[in-house]
Amino acid sequence: MVSTAGQVIRCRAAVAWEAGKPLVIEEVEVAPPQAMEVRLKIHFTSLCHTDVYFWEAKGQTPLFPRIFGHEAGGIVESVGEGVTDLKPGDHVLPVFTGECKECRHCKSEESNMCDLLRINTDRGVMLNDGKSRFSVSGKPVYHFVGTSTFSEFTVVHVGCLAKINPAAPLDKVCILSCGISTGLGATLNVAKPKKGSTVAIFGLGAVSLAAAEGARIAGASRIIGIYLNSKRFEEAKKFGVTEFVNPKEHEKPVQEVIVEMTDGGVDRSVECTGSVNAMISAFECVHDGWGVAVLVGVPNKDDAFKTHPMNVLNEKTLKGTFFGNYKPRSDLPSVVEKYMSKELELEKFITHEVPFAEINKAFEYMLKGDGLRCIIRMDG
Amino acid sequence: MVSTAGQVIRCRAAVAWEAGKPLVIEEVEVAPPQAMEVRLKIHFTSLCHTDVYFWEAKGQTPLFPRIFGHEAGGIVESVGEGVTDLKPGDHVLPVFTGECKECRHCKSEESNMCDLLRINTDRGVMLNDGKSRFSVSGKPVYHFVGTSTFSEFTVVHVGCLAKINPAAPLDKVCILSCGISTGLGATLNVAKPKKGSTVAIFGLGAVSLAAAEGARIAGASRIIGIYLNSKRFEEAKKFGVTEFVNPKEHEKPVQEVIVEMTDGGVDRSVECTGSVNAMISAFECVHDGWGVAVLVGVPNKDDAFKTHPMNVLNEKTLKGTFFGNYKPRSDLPSVVEKYMSKELELEKFITHEVPFAEINKAFEYMLKGDGLRCIIRMDG
Repeated sequence: MVSTAGQVIRCRAAVAWEAGKPLVIEEVEVAPPQAMEVRLKIHFTSLCHTDVYFWEAKGQTPLFPRIFGHEAGGIVESVGEGVTDLKPGDHVLPVFTGECKECRHCKSEESNMCDLLRINTDRGVMLNDGKSRFSVSGKPVYHFVGTSTFSEFTVVHVGCLAKINPAAPLDKVCILSCGISTGLGATLNVAKPKKGSTVAIFGLGAVSLAAAEGARIAGASRIIGIYLNSKRFEEAKKFGVTEFVNPKEHEKPVQEVIVEMTDGGVDRSVECTGSVNAMISAFECVHDGWGVAVLVGVPNKDDAFKTHPMNVLNEKTLKGTFFGNYKPRSDLPSVVEKYMSKELELEKFITHEVPFAEINKAFEYMLKGDGLRCIIRMDG
Repeated sequence: MVSTAGQVIRCRAAVAWEAGKPLVIEEVEVAPPQAMEVRLKIHFTSLCHTDVYFWEAKGQTPLFPRIFGHEAGGIVESVGEGVTDLKPGDHVLPVFTGECKECRHCKSEESNMCDLLRINTDRGVMLNDGKSRFSVSGKPVYHFVGTSTFSEFTVVHVGCLAKINPAAPLDKVCILSCGISTGLGATLNVAKPKKGSTVAIFGLGAVSLAAAEGARIAGASRIIGIYLNSKRFEEAKKFGVTEFVNPKEHEKPVQEVIVEMTDGGVDRSVECTGSVNAMISAFECVHDGWGVAVLVGVPNKDDAFKTHPMNVLNEKTLKGTFFGNYKPRSDLPSVVEKYMSKELELEKFITHEVPFAEINKAFEYMLKGDGLRCIIRMDG
């Protein structure tokens, strides 16, 4: 095989030309990686709500044409100047947020909110030169969160790539790039339920079910799923959820229902919906003295989290998390190992699979709320 | 000395006959301790804001006549049935909240909010028989938070007594019964600043300065005091406070001022005023990624803690604490030892001393905001 390093690669990418319009498979040019960048071949990618949210562009500045996609598994094709951690052939997961290993956040044991590479949804270009590496017939196409995995080849900052076990099947572990790790880490790294404890999970989407999976792995004895649609309840049992509450079926606030069910409150709660009312319920349903509520879901701009301060003073803790508090490069390889050792189950999150040529079907499934994760095979 | 065990003791107590009226030194009868109760001789007591708050009875159901007082040091005179942990002659600190050692909270490593003996400001009687142990000419006088230390002798549940080193001077360590431990523990047990970190302390009263003392002991490099009255700033330096912010001297919200001073926010903040705006500022001024805000001050009934949920999602933590998360019986003896080993300084908190006969002077000092703690000598 002739090396493509240093050359422009022509390949297929799914380009979003306009907000909300179906993606179009185009031949794009992918420029070689610059300093601290890596070019990789995407083998599998999956669709996450965040792609759909920015593709719909209802709440934010539209930036088009753009190549979406940020959950994926790939193999390094070539590396730019200064890249020493990765080499061609390495298996990697691109991540929408990064780890420069130099800033205060990267040096802190507690934070993963890297100053240099923290998620930036407004930026459509690479850091090194402020330009895009993608073009169609010479016209630049914007990047998305530094990953743009809806392309056979993409260029990513080395700080946004986790090098993983090459034995790990990329069609499974690609979903660890974002949503599943976010939910899993929220429980395992932040809520940290003890064995035998009681955990409430708000929401029953992929992130929430990953949070439930975390509670299952941690050995929680009761995992209570809270969701507005009871249809999800049966499926959620596979993720360790033992009980369900549909707030619509109760007159009193759901936090009161949960407090009664659990003799004073749950030990831990994890909120993944982004609804500010669910956030407040998640906080107020934890037990005084030791309860910890973890917020994951992203709220609207004008939301206000509001509670009586006595809820805090009664020794409850409120914590937020971003990407499950995982540092992408340092921690993600070990999450892949959790899957390899069969501690973490990923297959049950994968409900659909489509060839790349039919990527718009993945959008349809998600918009209909059908299933959890749809894997997109780049060779198809 | 003839034993008084089993007998009614006649002694002096400062009785509050009416809300807001000066206390009256009366001869009271103190009944013997019943099951799980202990009668003790108070040697020194001090005045805390909570005494004044319930004596003024502006915000709660008035309960009079009542014997206030809950910061004190004493020696056990006799014990009731079932008390095995204490014997006559033991030195003790009575505490307004207790530790039964049997309930879920007492068995939890995280909580000190005992189900049986948690503070109850409305109850003016003992748990065992629902009656008072105090009377004046046969007429019952109510207890206050199970301690009522403004009496030469008092009766306290064994679960509300910390047995301490008999070598510890009671005229100093008596202030560890409430306020000082509350502030100190908020920092040392809950905020847990690392050596070299930056800590903001909201308020500069005794509890706040104890929180600052905790930050000093923990080795914080910058301790920022936030207070509306700059007069306190000079005194606060003795407690390790290195910088001051008077919110009145700034146009922008104080959290923004602090974020600018500290390149993104403090590592830890402790709020001791009970003002809901200060609580919000305390939360919003901590650094994203690792900041922890600890709420200590008790808010008004109708207050709402309100913040944008993104503040939480950016990996800030909000925690509340009650009595500095100390379990009274298990943990307080070690706080006394911190004083004995000179790690913790207590003398600087003691700004006044009065004989028991002049107890109303202590109320005057506190109402004027004069000084920090006034020790009341029971033999005077």
